Amino acid sequence: MNDRLDLASRCAQALYDRDAASQGLGMRLLASGPGSATVGMSVRADMLQGHNTCHGGFLFALADSAFAFACNSHNAATVAQGCSIDYVAPAFEGDTLTATCNELSRGKRTGVYDVRIDNQHGQLIALFRGKSYQIRGTVLAEETLK
Amino acid sequence: MNDRLDLASRCAQALYDRDAASQGLGMRLLASGPGSATVGMSVRADMLQGHNTCHGGFLFALADSAFAFACNSHNAATVAQGCSIDYVAPAFEGDTLTATCNELSRGKRTGVYDVRIDNQHGQLIALFRGKSYQIRGTVLAEETLK
Amino acid sequence: MNDRLDLASRCAQALYDRDAASQGLGMRLLASGPGSATVGMSVRADMLQGHNTCHGGFLFALADSAFAFACNSHNAATVAQGCSIDYVAPAFEGDTLTATCNELSRGKRTGVYDVRIDNQHGQLIALFRGKSYQIRGTVLAEETLK
Amino acid sequence: MNDRLDLASRCAQALYDRDAASQGLGMRLLASGPGSATVGMSVRADMLQGHNTCHGGFLFALADSAFAFACNSHNAATVAQGCSIDYVAPAFEGDTLTATCNELSRGKRTGVYDVRIDNQHGQLIALFRGKSYQIRGTVLAEETLK
Repeated sequence: MNDRLDLASRCAQALYDRDAASQGLGMRLLASGPGSATVGMSVRADMLQGHNTCHGGFLFALADSAFAFACNSHNAATVAQGCSIDYVAPAFEGDTLTATCNELSRGKRTGVYDVRIDNQHGQLIALFRGKSYQIRGTVLAEETLK
Repeated sequence: MNDRLDLASRCAQALYDRDAASQGLGMRLLASGPGSATVGMSVRADMLQGHNTCHGGFLFALADSAFAFACNSHNAATVAQGCSIDYVAPAFEGDTLTATCNELSRGKRTGVYDVRIDNQHGQLIALFRGKSYQIRGTVLAEETLK
Repeated sequence: MNDRLDLASRCAQALYDRDAASQGLGMRLLASGPGSATVGMSVRADMLQGHNTCHGGFLFALADSAFAFACNSHNAATVAQGCSIDYVAPAFEGDTLTATCNELSRGKRTGVYDVRIDNQHGQLIALFRGKSYQIRGTVLAEETLK
Repeated sequence: MNDRLDLASRCAQALYDRDAASQGLGMRLLASGPGSATVGMSVRADMLQGHNTCHGGFLFALADSAFAFACNSHNAATVAQGCSIDYVAPAFEGDTLTATCNELSRGKRTGVYDVRIDNQHGQLIALFRGKSYQIRGTVLAEETLK
């Protein structure tokens, strides 16, 4: 069995389980691995802004959650320092979005991650880049690591 | 009476009125002017992530809404192209956040806007920069401009 | 023969030929294609800053040139709107850097491009993202298109 | 006499003195203070790209140097982590550009700085945001601090 894969999976699940925000937005943790994560979310009516498309904040939140699961997958507590998003196409009510995050670089304390959001037709919706910063502590409690 | 100020105020209010996302997140439109907007939001329990602080997506959404009201304040329909956010300090449940947006540049089609988010103690929480793109159409319907 | 590949190659070469800055910095156009470009540059003594590593401006310039060749490869005159760079490892005097640019998205007027800079050991030095904006005009003069 | 101002001035000057890149590009250190710096540069013929305007790499380098002098002004050795630039108007040969950097936030290890570049007519040319990371060491050698 692949230990790093197993660890990544347990870290992502633990983080998701205590993440009221991601759960409340209906996000689903679809996949996770060392430095990677895939998260799904459907666009609800309460996510639409004045132009009747998905508010950028919810696209960002989806990407940001995928980023959080990916950068915490090595079991070192890690937070976002800063992120950027570029919008490529609008998302509409009922769309099923998938955010896929991959690790581009990971140094001693900082890392760079890319996320792409696609809709159910495989159309690119947004591109996100996140910069992480490792703090003290682990994702999993000590006893759970036995 | 200042016509540009009045126009900005009516554009921001019209956009807010049809923005289910900003309303659903409890945002309050506190001020608006030509190229500027101030928006308030309180951090709720359902906005917390796995580290028990406000999920970056909601900080981003707050800044993004202030940006939307500011860049649409000239009554030319305008959308976000891309945005970046840098986190300075965490926000906690019950914090009252204020996002203040100002226009740095506005060309024929594109513009650059800055937002800062402070908490109720005047502490800086995050810095956001948004890039806008003017599309066809107006914010206010023709008849309301009479 | 691949017409789009040929067009890309002629656009990149034409742009490079009138680009005193890229030439003056010793950049070499190594490859080009539709939406892509690879550019090489060696770090000279006059490119070092106060910490004795390559000044970020020259890393940025290298990535920016690769981006320019890539986003102009469709023969529609295109300029940069904004760019971001994240530094992963320092570059030293004598290092041979390679910037590889790929197109992530290209709409009617705007596009998103990624560049990665590696050194001669294949080590990642920096990650760059560029946003393009298509203006009027072509890269190649009309008569050269016959 | 203001000690922090004096320290900032000595740090900026020391960094500039060993910065072959900034000197080679003709940059002039115009002002410095705690968390701030102003740097001038004239656009030379060898800084022009294929559209006959200043290559973005040189605008970036100018802003990046102002950022470096500002974030090192507290005498803690500090490097850039990542930067973004948004272009507002082109710069032409012979233009005299001024980059003004200010500190927006400075935590234990990381900071956020803004730079604006204006030309000799006071026209805004570009907006830059830099993220800093404090490493070990000081800018000034120990003995010079006596």
